[in-house]
Amino acid sequence: MIKIVIVGFGNIGKAVMEAVEAAKDMELCGIVMRAQSLNKPQVALPVVDDVQRLEVKPEVAILCTPSRTIPEVAEGFLTQGINTIDSYDIHNNIWELRQRLNPAAQKGGSVAIVSTGFDPGGDSVIRALFEAFAPQGQTFTNFGPGMSLGHTVAIKAVEGVKDALSITIPLGTGVHRRLVYVDLLDGYKFEDIAAKIKDDSYFRNDETHIYFEKNINSLIDVGHGVNLVRKGVSGKAHNQQFVFDMRINNPALTSQVMVACARASVKQNPGAYTMIEIPVIDMLDGNREELVRRLV
Amino acid sequence: MIKIVIVGFGNIGKAVMEAVEAAKDMELCGIVMRAQSLNKPQVALPVVDDVQRLEVKPEVAILCTPSRTIPEVAEGFLTQGINTIDSYDIHNNIWELRQRLNPAAQKGGSVAIVSTGFDPGGDSVIRALFEAFAPQGQTFTNFGPGMSLGHTVAIKAVEGVKDALSITIPLGTGVHRRLVYVDLLDGYKFEDIAAKIKDDSYFRNDETHIYFEKNINSLIDVGHGVNLVRKGVSGKAHNQQFVFDMRINNPALTSQVMVACARASVKQNPGAYTMIEIPVIDMLDGNREELVRRLV
Repeated sequence: MIKIVIVGFGNIGKAVMEAVEAAKDMELCGIVMRAQSLNKPQVALPVVDDVQRLEVKPEVAILCTPSRTIPEVAEGFLTQGINTIDSYDIHNNIWELRQRLNPAAQKGGSVAIVSTGFDPGGDSVIRALFEAFAPQGQTFTNFGPGMSLGHTVAIKAVEGVKDALSITIPLGTGVHRRLVYVDLLDGYKFEDIAAKIKDDSYFRNDETHIYFEKNINSLIDVGHGVNLVRKGVSGKAHNQQFVFDMRINNPALTSQVMVACARASVKQNPGAYTMIEIPVIDMLDGNREELVRRLV
Repeated sequence: MIKIVIVGFGNIGKAVMEAVEAAKDMELCGIVMRAQSLNKPQVALPVVDDVQRLEVKPEVAILCTPSRTIPEVAEGFLTQGINTIDSYDIHNNIWELRQRLNPAAQKGGSVAIVSTGFDPGGDSVIRALFEAFAPQGQTFTNFGPGMSLGHTVAIKAVEGVKDALSITIPLGTGVHRRLVYVDLLDGYKFEDIAAKIKDDSYFRNDETHIYFEKNINSLIDVGHGVNLVRKGVSGKAHNQQFVFDMRINNPALTSQVMVACARASVKQNPGAYTMIEIPVIDMLDGNREELVRRLV
């Protein structure tokens, strides 16, 4: 049984708990949360503010804290010899994160798998595989329809916004429409807030529609999707066409992929990896012969 | 530059030559063909009946001979220290092939990647990844519309058949219709041949339609497709939906995947592998940092 600790217990942390409970080869040692948020969750597990307070030392920490906290949090676990899995999603800095965690993992004899989850993560493996199928050509990743957490957070940071939601609508060839719903604090004008949002770097380059909505909660649906398309050349044959499409509960998929990578982490040599650097078979439960016979 | 030799020079061998020529990190050392078929092909490459007759020792042999010849042919190269890539497609015996080639590769300090290509091969990686996304559920692999080489060969083996073609039509949930076209030798009756084909183990369990056709060549189109569908459970969330669809020139895709695996083979430790046991990044040309930045 692979011993797992969950670090952070928001939406993703809760979904990771469900995915670990569903995995026959894993057991949960506990949950690590910051001291100031230790309103103990209703779970039959040890909840601590430091992993060293757990009676059993976990083999893998699944990190469910915000992306910006990941580099420091991961280093702490890795140097203690505990593998880390994160869903760090700041695309421009993924290589830097991998390079920062690599020496910590080498030092601790541990493994980091960075930027797992939906995208980056599962989509990354598909993009890499599609390039192996057709080295020359173009790939487009089309997201949605579904909630964009990053865009929603960006709107909530605008002064005067009480609650918000940003929905991503795919228009094809990697172009997206943003549907933004905002509720306002007293004393703020919708037109002013809308202008600010349209000028934000998250929205400036996309077709953005902004609506006033008192009841944001009535719109919440964690379903999401991707339609990832490559058209290219295999050998000298043009017009090779590849499509990956998924329609999923986003926190459930993200956490399931993190759990699959937790399993893979105990099979790798010490160091830091992205998902495209890991054999897919290592993400699966079962013995090698049975998996090869069934899946190849 | 990775030094490649092509073994066998039928449709796949020719397509492999094109894919190697298109790869910037590879060079062709020559072609190995059986002595009795040494009607030298019109290529600017050494053509020999034994790899040891080549001036340059290749690092990887891409095997384009029939599946039943692969175990013995591959062993010969592996024990000489030359990696092998095959597209062995007898699904029931893939594990046995891997197990047979593993000691030969260990002995020769070489690497075998078995059963690469379309299916088994690329589809296998997708099937494995979809199980990582949703461990519980069902996967269906739907082939076509397109030519089935295996089924065509089975018909050609029937006494009285002059020429034949079998087309696979997907009916969904892994069920297929077979469209069979036959031209007959003089003195044979269509009804008798059709009855024999319907009773063959390749066709017995499928809805099979058999047509008489004088001009089989007029129907040839090497385009093929797959629609690979999984619906299952991530964590505790049901109804997660995943689809992989491709529409491709089949020999071009098969050979491109073999070439990608040839590249991956020089990065593995000695031994025998299936595609799901290899990191996808190893199949791609380019340095690790650039690939991670672009694809993850």
